[in-house]
Amino acid sequence: MHLSEVTHPNQLHGLSVPQLEQIAQQIREKHLQTIAASGGHLGPGLGVVELTLGLYQTLDLDRDKVVWDVGHQAYPHKLITGRYKDFHTLRQQNGVAGYLKRSESKFDHFGAGHASTSISAALGMAIARDLKGEDYKVAAIIGDGALTGGMALEAINHAGHLPNTNLVVVLNDNEMSISPNVGAIPRYLNKVRLSPPMQFLTDNLEEQFKQLPFSQSLTPELSRFKEGMKRIAVPKVGAVFEELGFTYMGPVDGHNLTELIEAFKGAHHHGGPVLVHVVTTKGKGYAIAEKDQVGYHAQSPFDLETGKKIPSSKPKPPDYSKVFAETLIKLAEDDPTIVGITAAMATGTRLDLLQAKLPKQYIDVGIAEQHAVTLAAGLACEGMKPVPVIYSTFLQRAFDQIVHDVCIQKLPVFFALDRAGIVGVDGPTHQGMYDIAYLRCIPNMVLMAPKDEAELQRMVVTGLEYDGPIAVRYPRGSGYGVPLMEEGWETLPIGKAEVLRQGDDVLLVGYGAMVYPAMQTAEILSEHGVEATVVNARFAKPLDTELMLPLAEKIGRVVTMEDGCIMGGFGSGLAEELLDRDMKPDLMRLGVPDKLVDHASPDQSKADLGLMPAQMAERILERFKLGESSREMVEQR
Amino acid sequence: MHLSEVTHPNQLHGLSVPQLEQIAQQIREKHLQTIAASGGHLGPGLGVVELTLGLYQTLDLDRDKVVWDVGHQAYPHKLITGRYKDFHTLRQQNGVAGYLKRSESKFDHFGAGHASTSISAALGMAIARDLKGEDYKVAAIIGDGALTGGMALEAINHAGHLPNTNLVVVLNDNEMSISPNVGAIPRYLNKVRLSPPMQFLTDNLEEQFKQLPFSQSLTPELSRFKEGMKRIAVPKVGAVFEELGFTYMGPVDGHNLTELIEAFKGAHHHGGPVLVHVVTTKGKGYAIAEKDQVGYHAQSPFDLETGKKIPSSKPKPPDYSKVFAETLIKLAEDDPTIVGITAAMATGTRLDLLQAKLPKQYIDVGIAEQHAVTLAAGLACEGMKPVPVIYSTFLQRAFDQIVHDVCIQKLPVFFALDRAGIVGVDGPTHQGMYDIAYLRCIPNMVLMAPKDEAELQRMVVTGLEYDGPIAVRYPRGSGYGVPLMEEGWETLPIGKAEVLRQGDDVLLVGYGAMVYPAMQTAEILSEHGVEATVVNARFAKPLDTELMLPLAEKIGRVVTMEDGCIMGGFGSGLAEELLDRDMKPDLMRLGVPDKLVDHASPDQSKADLGLMPAQMAERILERFKLGESSREMVEQR
Repeated sequence: MHLSEVTHPNQLHGLSVPQLEQIAQQIREKHLQTIAASGGHLGPGLGVVELTLGLYQTLDLDRDKVVWDVGHQAYPHKLITGRYKDFHTLRQQNGVAGYLKRSESKFDHFGAGHASTSISAALGMAIARDLKGEDYKVAAIIGDGALTGGMALEAINHAGHLPNTNLVVVLNDNEMSISPNVGAIPRYLNKVRLSPPMQFLTDNLEEQFKQLPFSQSLTPELSRFKEGMKRIAVPKVGAVFEELGFTYMGPVDGHNLTELIEAFKGAHHHGGPVLVHVVTTKGKGYAIAEKDQVGYHAQSPFDLETGKKIPSSKPKPPDYSKVFAETLIKLAEDDPTIVGITAAMATGTRLDLLQAKLPKQYIDVGIAEQHAVTLAAGLACEGMKPVPVIYSTFLQRAFDQIVHDVCIQKLPVFFALDRAGIVGVDGPTHQGMYDIAYLRCIPNMVLMAPKDEAELQRMVVTGLEYDGPIAVRYPRGSGYGVPLMEEGWETLPIGKAEVLRQGDDVLLVGYGAMVYPAMQTAEILSEHGVEATVVNARFAKPLDTELMLPLAEKIGRVVTMEDGCIMGGFGSGLAEELLDRDMKPDLMRLGVPDKLVDHASPDQSKADLGLMPAQMAERILERFKLGESSREMVEQR
Repeated sequence: MHLSEVTHPNQLHGLSVPQLEQIAQQIREKHLQTIAASGGHLGPGLGVVELTLGLYQTLDLDRDKVVWDVGHQAYPHKLITGRYKDFHTLRQQNGVAGYLKRSESKFDHFGAGHASTSISAALGMAIARDLKGEDYKVAAIIGDGALTGGMALEAINHAGHLPNTNLVVVLNDNEMSISPNVGAIPRYLNKVRLSPPMQFLTDNLEEQFKQLPFSQSLTPELSRFKEGMKRIAVPKVGAVFEELGFTYMGPVDGHNLTELIEAFKGAHHHGGPVLVHVVTTKGKGYAIAEKDQVGYHAQSPFDLETGKKIPSSKPKPPDYSKVFAETLIKLAEDDPTIVGITAAMATGTRLDLLQAKLPKQYIDVGIAEQHAVTLAAGLACEGMKPVPVIYSTFLQRAFDQIVHDVCIQKLPVFFALDRAGIVGVDGPTHQGMYDIAYLRCIPNMVLMAPKDEAELQRMVVTGLEYDGPIAVRYPRGSGYGVPLMEEGWETLPIGKAEVLRQGDDVLLVGYGAMVYPAMQTAEILSEHGVEATVVNARFAKPLDTELMLPLAEKIGRVVTMEDGCIMGGFGSGLAEELLDRDMKPDLMRLGVPDKLVDHASPDQSKADLGLMPAQMAERILERFKLGESSREMVEQR
């Protein structure tokens, strides 16, 4: 059988191990070819080829449930569940998604994108099964990195308390998050991983122990000690999980199909919660990725032979993340109280640069956004200037900590929200759409967003200088290539906007990444004889009402532009300010409407949402009945 | 020395244990008298009197830092840090707060209210200390219940990874959250607690072990076994914490001052992270509370002699929580797929009634809101109707799970937000102010709030019937005493409002708990010759634009009323809908402005915010220049 014929994982049932190894080989080839051609997550999927095949030998995916954590390691799963044929469309608009998605396949039993959710979802399914009196199997696969996320530990605490609820948790232990793992749990796993698989010694050991002479005349203390023997002999490996109510199995060689199938069969036979500890190698089977596991976690298109990135046709300006990090480093060199904090996203946020340069002023807390924020609050109490740098979508995890530990206490924590707005190929789970809305409602919070990477530099200084909670959001990807400064940045006055262009017909207020598009829109409008004033709002909170409201009233037509949800977002804030004063210009709020945005290139997403400058110009002309020539054009279509 | 003379905890330094025991006695008396008179948290504080005194014997609170988790157990701390004199004002407006507050005392090093934050904050302080090259001590005190919260475990994972960062975590183990604890961690602690303090046996045991004959001729396996000996002998108690990088000390008798002081001294001498496991009795020293630890976690005013609640002067209608729970139970009796979920708030949410009646359809996950929500998502995938019942303020913890696991997948989870709106005496950490704003921005979410407890019943049915994410918010405390139905409730059409009163001068749109006040406001307005139409919005999302917008346009003056933040809230949603259509009535949004609301009675808070009906009527008359007689009255003031 060739992989291309597999549309249902049950087709693989009954294959011999050598036959499965052939399928594994084919999965790796397809996987590598696809990612090399179009980019995507490389290392995670390669690491779990045998794990996937082995597990699915013991499951019937029409009945049994499987929940993959994060989902970026589920490409092998996708390749044997009917998506081989379309796999070349991976992460492209209308193509196969980069993460799991219930709407994409009946075999995606639970969607994912963020880490640490799988045990909770799987436990829910297991409890449902028992309540319904059914008897299918439920398995969650979670990485060792994701295991440090608090909600995974909450789920373990709960599952370990339910000795009669069958649940198999497969720990995919590759010693990595995206970067090497941080924390006591990974270190513990590391110790366990290096241990011999002690369960195979037990019987032998117990036998020898029985024959020891002191078994006749035990002091009470030694008696208690002997009782502990089994404990030490069996689950020394995995003692923590055993103490938490799980049956521990492992470590299992994650690239040995025979061992894997054996282990999973055993796990399903056990009652209650079972943890199967599988040791895998990230990037397995592609030597270059095995050697550089951080670099090949995810890749843009690359040359399979050399592993080298295929250079994009045109040179790119530095991206926002890098500008942010480099500016922070410059300032941190002169100010030892500045501390950058990442939650296992050192490379994505480019805080790896800070780590390399000023390791003492860098903290990686692991996949633990909640802890990151309250840790920052603690640092701030003691006079430090903590800067949690977290993707907009992941900061959702720490919403309560932002309210409760930072804003209520008005502590000077400077939040940097990377990947805010439309993120593109990662799809709905990763869109940074909600941060303006979810942060705007919190008292004491200041929100800002730069129009370009040079303004981001000034906002870094502003954020560090401000004595209270403050956040900056910036988009994924490259800036505009505007000139950057090496030092000497000036702070921006809090809550002050700037006027970029004058015009009497319409007021365009852009926020952050939508300021340049607002300018482009203005140019297009101008071609239609419509002259716009363009304001770079800079701050979503506090809004520069002093500047904007008189302009709004004078011009009478206002358009807000934001790359986030318009429900409760930036434009909603301006609407509030206007109506509170009975000012009533026509107001059009452009942004992301109240729906999910699927994976696609950022420009495709924007085009779908009507947020490209030409589209916005057209929408504005239509809404305000301006520029007749254009309106005729619209009507003709 | 008498407690009343203590204004600085250092005054207690050097006191003998019998002297400290006298102070302990005085703390208990003051504590009991105060709570008996005015209500508050009873059991938690009584349990940590000796813990507090013992710990503070080893700290200099001018230099050293102490972080109390939750803060409801910090009354003894308050009584020896300068708040004895004012302690009778506990939880009263402008009086001593019920939780910790940095602005209240320099000895409140970190504020709290929600659980599980202390280790993160303390670790932040410890890291700051080391970065600054200073050498004070940092201690966090966390309950065994709070330890099951994911962020506490994230913090342990991080702290355990920093062997050179001194941090003392005091585990206040009273076997309880508010209710008995749930989960594998508490069960593990229970096992540990019941163990003899084994560290005292070690030397002896090691000695005996050495003399055993088999030490001469060990097989490799037995040799490894022997290496494990020390492990089993020393930290069998606390092995999990030791594996996670902490030095474990305990269990220590939490009511024995000598033992406590000894243990804390030892802990401070250790390098790195240390966990001191202190076993306490909730309600210690007040026999009635020791016997009923759930009932006496917190109390309204009661008779010290009998422990009985002092009945309030007028009979109260059933509260919203109870109506919710009883309606849910009625429906769950006929529908085994309904499952109520609480995160350690069984009594507060009244899900204890569900537990008593239908234990299989009840889940307490412990203090673990994140897990609760994704568990619900898993249940929903398998055809169950999960109902997480969580206070508005605590649901903030699960914001990402609501977005990522429920709403993106459009799963039918019915969220019940108890204690939404102004909560009163618990203060800013517990205000349910933000839920409309933080939930409104999420696609696929439906939001509703009942005008009274009878409508809540209908919303329970509506929430259970709806095939997607839906939330109902309801306030703390009693309903209006309107007639309730025993069965046969009809669902409400999603997104449909109702008109309660007709009038041509102003349109009042109330949401949830503000509908009756809107009616009262209308009556007052009527006295001034101003006739209001009153709409019960029922849904904040989707808004009933079909009903409301024509009314708004016709009447021309609109007032929204909500008991939540107006920034991004309900009124903001109506503003969006109006402006999107170029409808421009005057709009006044009444609700909680962008500031924190301190502890006070709910009516005091509302009065401060101008949200009592008479105040609202006055504000409306003024804003719209209506009802001259009233305006003169206002101007005269």
